[in-house]
Amino acid sequence: MDVITELTRVLVERRGADPEKSYVSALYAKGLNKILEKVGEEATEVIIAAKDYRKDHRDDQTALVGEVADLWFHSMVMLTHLNIEPKEVLDTLAARFGIGGLEEKANRTK
Amino acid sequence: MDVITELTRVLVERRGADPEKSYVSALYAKGLNKILEKVGEEATEVIIAAKDYRKDHRDDQTALVGEVADLWFHSMVMLTHLNIEPKEVLDTLAARFGIGGLEEKANRTK
Amino acid sequence: MDVITELTRVLVERRGADPEKSYVSALYAKGLNKILEKVGEEATEVIIAAKDYRKDHRDDQTALVGEVADLWFHSMVMLTHLNIEPKEVLDTLAARFGIGGLEEKANRTK
Amino acid sequence: MDVITELTRVLVERRGADPEKSYVSALYAKGLNKILEKVGEEATEVIIAAKDYRKDHRDDQTALVGEVADLWFHSMVMLTHLNIEPKEVLDTLAARFGIGGLEEKANRTK
Repeated sequence: MDVITELTRVLVERRGADPEKSYVSALYAKGLNKILEKVGEEATEVIIAAKDYRKDHRDDQTALVGEVADLWFHSMVMLTHLNIEPKEVLDTLAARFGIGGLEEKANRTK
Repeated sequence: MDVITELTRVLVERRGADPEKSYVSALYAKGLNKILEKVGEEATEVIIAAKDYRKDHRDDQTALVGEVADLWFHSMVMLTHLNIEPKEVLDTLAARFGIGGLEEKANRTK
Repeated sequence: MDVITELTRVLVERRGADPEKSYVSALYAKGLNKILEKVGEEATEVIIAAKDYRKDHRDDQTALVGEVADLWFHSMVMLTHLNIEPKEVLDTLAARFGIGGLEEKANRTK
Repeated sequence: MDVITELTRVLVERRGADPEKSYVSALYAKGLNKILEKVGEEATEVIIAAKDYRKDHRDDQTALVGEVADLWFHSMVMLTHLNIEPKEVLDTLAARFGIGGLEEKANRTK
């Protein structure tokens, strides 16, 4: 199973969890605007980390990758909050670039 | 092969392509600031599309998923431009959520 | 008359102008989402210009100030599009910081 | 005195203030990245409040104007942090739109 699929499973589970015990459940409870504020915040942090990035500085790379992970993660929380499968994002990218053919074929033979 | 890996392969290939014939090659040629402007733009469009989203309207869902795809895509262009593997974003998410273990184990047996 | 008041007068005038001849009239015609995309874009450009800013480089300062001007300008277009007076932004700032008292007193004596 | 000039005076004063007692002094102490994160956050909140805005709902108008005030305010904090006069933003707008002539003339006679 790929990471997006597994993470989606976690995000769906967190819907029923205690908002006091789970960051994601707390976000769901606060609603769409709060989740979108996080998407905006993380996009800003990606931009700042990319401007601060210095080639061959492992810490800068870890920081930048971490911010992109935060951005993708909060996009996924937003989609799950709206009952949309994050997997559709990958399907859209695959369709646009004419990729994913092999993966689909492999799935079909299962 | 998963979509992120295949798309990364495409993005790496476009580095050597003619900026007049490829959108991605043109973005690389314009440099980091232009790519980051696109990341910021797409984040804004995600937020607007999420606010416009109406449950059970298939068009709204397609539009929102398309904007998230644009956002992830331009994040990947940014990472590839800086010689960072987009795959690291998924590894970071996997590590944070304690997932991907089976996948890693499977890879280890290869 | 102050700049915000005069600029507001220009923005209100442009409401009736030909979208083919005026940038602002064209923006009004495109609607709120397009205006908000511009606000998001300009915020991103402010952030990038601030990160590129080098002390005592007059060009960097001109660039950064220009981006902030774009951001404020498009916020004003958005407010005018929604029939809200941009002057209210200054009133809000004045109220928050307990300033503007002298100005109001001066106006009262006119 | 206009609001931007008076607010600038306050922002300059806060440079020397105790970061534990003043929000602005705390922001200065945290540095440019933190200030830029606030600019990005406030831009996102402007966009969300504009999408939530309903005509003739006084509360929505107050909320939207308040978010624009936050955005302009944090832009001004950023400029002051970099030793740039926020007044330059208004000068740039005035120059672009050929306004502010009367004001300048009045200043010249002083």
